[in-house]
Amino acid sequence: MKAGNKQIGARLRIVVEPDLAIGPGKADILEGIKETGSITAAGRRMGMSYKRAWLLVETMNRCFRTPLVETSRGGRAHGGATLTPTGELVLDCYRRMESRTQRAIEKDMAKLRAVVRDLAN
Amino acid sequence: MKAGNKQIGARLRIVVEPDLAIGPGKADILEGIKETGSITAAGRRMGMSYKRAWLLVETMNRCFRTPLVETSRGGRAHGGATLTPTGELVLDCYRRMESRTQRAIEKDMAKLRAVVRDLAN
Repeated sequence: MKAGNKQIGARLRIVVEPDLAIGPGKADILEGIKETGSITAAGRRMGMSYKRAWLLVETMNRCFRTPLVETSRGGRAHGGATLTPTGELVLDCYRRMESRTQRAIEKDMAKLRAVVRDLAN
Repeated sequence: MKAGNKQIGARLRIVVEPDLAIGPGKADILEGIKETGSITAAGRRMGMSYKRAWLLVETMNRCFRTPLVETSRGGRAHGGATLTPTGELVLDCYRRMESRTQRAIEKDMAKLRAVVRDLAN
């Protein structure tokens, strides 16, 4: 199972258009870039190589048609990186969707967890 | 990209406990078994081999501690299959979580789609 299956709660993948989706990994890398100003540092926080983090950013930039991330020296240079206004908007929307989802599923989550607990005892 | 990324909307993976999760694939196979009374038929609807469908069911039965699916002849026989009360409960909870999530994210979804549309034009 993926590491994302360790933390209890909902994992949300939003398909905005066919083949244009954002999920926990992309959101985390956007947030990491926003907070650290660097793709390398953002990837490192997630236990990801620079190359893998960069490929994820590249995929996002291509999929969303306008870049979500801008690198200060462009290309693959290890320079700084920042979110574009579109990047900020996508991240904000996703985080709000996540927290609204956690509230929306609260009751059923308690129901599922109660069943699992009962069975474990 | 996965086929699940073709249909616009939220994909929900619920981590009930560490390493105990239910997502769109497991929900669809549960629903397929409920509607067809057969693991083979449920898998076929999803373009899945019998073996793959059966392994998915086996994983669920093991992860949820009490089986979610019962086979009428037991084991790998191609006989009938039904949901147990726990299977029904898990499927119901998941479908309700899904529809509540779609409602909860509606506004932000419209926002994301508007950005994407503007950029495409």
